[in-house]
Amino acid sequence: MAVSVRFSDFARLAGAGAGKGKNMTKKEYDGYTYVDGGVCAAKGFVANGLNCGINPDREKYDLGLVYSETVCNAAAVYTQNKVKGAPIFVTKEHLEKSAGTARAVIVNSKNANTCNPNGIEVAEEVCALTAGALGILPEEVIVASTGVIGERLSTEPFRQGMPELVRGLSADGNGRAAYAIMTTDTIQKEVAVTFEIQGKSCTIGGMAKGSGMIHPNMATTLNFITSDVSISTEMLQAALSEVVKVTYNCLTIDGDTSTNDMVSVMCNGLAGNVQIREQNRDFDVFRQALYIVMENMAKMLAGDGEGATKMLECRCGGAKNLETAVAVAKSVVGSALVKCMFFGEDANCGRLLCALGYADAEFDIEKVNIDLASSGGRISVCKNGVILDFSEEEAAKIIGEQEIYIIIDLQDGDASAKAWGCDLTYDYVKINGDYRS
Amino acid sequence: MAVSVRFSDFARLAGAGAGKGKNMTKKEYDGYTYVDGGVCAAKGFVANGLNCGINPDREKYDLGLVYSETVCNAAAVYTQNKVKGAPIFVTKEHLEKSAGTARAVIVNSKNANTCNPNGIEVAEEVCALTAGALGILPEEVIVASTGVIGERLSTEPFRQGMPELVRGLSADGNGRAAYAIMTTDTIQKEVAVTFEIQGKSCTIGGMAKGSGMIHPNMATTLNFITSDVSISTEMLQAALSEVVKVTYNCLTIDGDTSTNDMVSVMCNGLAGNVQIREQNRDFDVFRQALYIVMENMAKMLAGDGEGATKMLECRCGGAKNLETAVAVAKSVVGSALVKCMFFGEDANCGRLLCALGYADAEFDIEKVNIDLASSGGRISVCKNGVILDFSEEEAAKIIGEQEIYIIIDLQDGDASAKAWGCDLTYDYVKINGDYRS
Repeated sequence: MAVSVRFSDFARLAGAGAGKGKNMTKKEYDGYTYVDGGVCAAKGFVANGLNCGINPDREKYDLGLVYSETVCNAAAVYTQNKVKGAPIFVTKEHLEKSAGTARAVIVNSKNANTCNPNGIEVAEEVCALTAGALGILPEEVIVASTGVIGERLSTEPFRQGMPELVRGLSADGNGRAAYAIMTTDTIQKEVAVTFEIQGKSCTIGGMAKGSGMIHPNMATTLNFITSDVSISTEMLQAALSEVVKVTYNCLTIDGDTSTNDMVSVMCNGLAGNVQIREQNRDFDVFRQALYIVMENMAKMLAGDGEGATKMLECRCGGAKNLETAVAVAKSVVGSALVKCMFFGEDANCGRLLCALGYADAEFDIEKVNIDLASSGGRISVCKNGVILDFSEEEAAKIIGEQEIYIIIDLQDGDASAKAWGCDLTYDYVKINGDYRS
Repeated sequence: MAVSVRFSDFARLAGAGAGKGKNMTKKEYDGYTYVDGGVCAAKGFVANGLNCGINPDREKYDLGLVYSETVCNAAAVYTQNKVKGAPIFVTKEHLEKSAGTARAVIVNSKNANTCNPNGIEVAEEVCALTAGALGILPEEVIVASTGVIGERLSTEPFRQGMPELVRGLSADGNGRAAYAIMTTDTIQKEVAVTFEIQGKSCTIGGMAKGSGMIHPNMATTLNFITSDVSISTEMLQAALSEVVKVTYNCLTIDGDTSTNDMVSVMCNGLAGNVQIREQNRDFDVFRQALYIVMENMAKMLAGDGEGATKMLECRCGGAKNLETAVAVAKSVVGSALVKCMFFGEDANCGRLLCALGYADAEFDIEKVNIDLASSGGRISVCKNGVILDFSEEEAAKIIGEQEIYIIIDLQDGDASAKAWGCDLTYDYVKINGDYRS
């Protein structure tokens, strides 16, 4: 089992998940096995989702619930946008009040409960309703909302939907919960892996939503992760904060950092391992599992970006430090011109160099090498800062695929990182020109 | 005549130029009069443009020349992208070698002469050809290129076109030069104003190109400005560096900082004023003229952004300092979601707050007021950080116009700034999915 990896090694370990667009197959990791079940994959977690009337389209779910049979240690990271959704404030306060423990996640879509005069009261009331129905304390509830900003959110639909939501909690309810948090998403996003700690079978699984307004900063779009590993709140927060930096924070759909981004992890300890309380070998195994779940989720979010037809992964290696590698990789996948170039399948590779050149990082442009790769092959397009006279035909074959890898070597050190994005398409403009209706 | 204005006052002085989209009328300024003539408006400047064969479409010009009958003091600002076009290096060296003087600008479109192995040699050769034909020194030539990055540029078309280019230099050649620098631009961009210094009639005029890859950092897309004012190189550079901060650097089309951005100003002194050598009243008058030319050009660039149907101006007032005002205004006009919202004419105003919230600046979100304005009216959409229950009908009328003003009050001080952008449309994607063909 892979342990004690340096952090920038994560990027190398997680290779080119083969497969196509929105149905990416996942890369195999030694000692980690993908399983179904999303947030219900780990022992002791149940979930549900339904339409409670926030979304007038009754076909679409708008309310999701995840519940642990036992108390969990919990950690979360939040958006760094100055404008924060009311649920962000309430969740933060709850985790402080409960000393980093939680039992449930309640989350609605269609309305972000943000920039409303009574947002905090509404979020508190939603937690109280949830706690009452589950027989737990309000501060054991993590609350989240996603959707339109600046529209009042009534608690009435929550009140009406709560009994049925709680009644329907089940160990196979993960899909319903994942469906409930979708907005402009076109696919449900769930990942889970099993692995061993001290010979005990452990599981970590999660669900995510997000398609637009995605340019995470210290957190991202909504992501809820559950695990049966026993780990202290402090170690859990440490693992989450570290992994988020090289996964969700390396994801950009449109450069817009949402107001409601949140990633939460709840660990109930039912795997039966001796609690992880320090950064030992067990911690490394857990952190790697968390990385696998979050990397896969990040790729799913990128591939399902609003209007996207292609998933773009930029790998920057040979950097003098992790920060440089991250800045370069994010700058390339975040460029509107690079995004359009892949949509148009036009190998206008000067744009890759241009985007790299305005990254906020230090490196020598005259040492930069760039390759393009996909299941269609691999080609070198830039060597030592000079665009090569590559075969347009070969390049066209590579960028005609749905998963594209832009591989940069700065020839300046050992650090590496990945960033994920997608192409910019007519549909992105269409979706966002008419979001509310 | 307006003088001794504090710098952040510029934003206030330059009000809402009325008029529509690409045919904006210009705001009147006390003591400054708009005139025709672009780079030839000032005394002693001639210009020309033609097709020399870099662009296979012979209808399109690809080579422009501006020439001053007498030696000019010159100043320039350049892109901060790490990847710089070869002409940037050569122009910089020439201005150093000539101690801040120049006689001519030679500029080609269709090929950026960037990331080529022999780019510097090509740019030097182009200057030598120009100098030879004009009978001046190579270091008196400012050289610039714009177009595709990473394609070799031959000097042969320059050699063939130079005699005719020089022969055709004339005082009404400004339009031909402005046409020669267009790439995806749909309109020529020229502005000139006359004003008085020491009772002498002075003129400053310029031309600009730029439509995509526009997110200037310390400089912008290609802009060439000429004036007959007598001013020292040092004072000229001071004025340019100051004005660029609140004009071109507040402009974003797509977040991509070009590799070839450059603004140059050449002043030949033929107006006959006593040379400006310090930051006195005359300096203020000149700087204000430069501001007027550059602000108008910035708005023209924004309104003619690739695929744009609307010009967006964000004015941020009540900021505690200029940096805060600039950061907030740029963040709003740069947001992909805000840009799509205006294209779709959907007053989804939470997106304005969201974009403001991730600006890299310090302010209190609970004090933020936002109005939307245009020739269709003015409406308040956010008060003290809370989205108001505004009339959708009124809002639709306002954002249905072609010039939209987003007016932000941070209620935190006296500084203000403007930033300019445009909507994000299907055509932006179309243009940039297939740029090279």
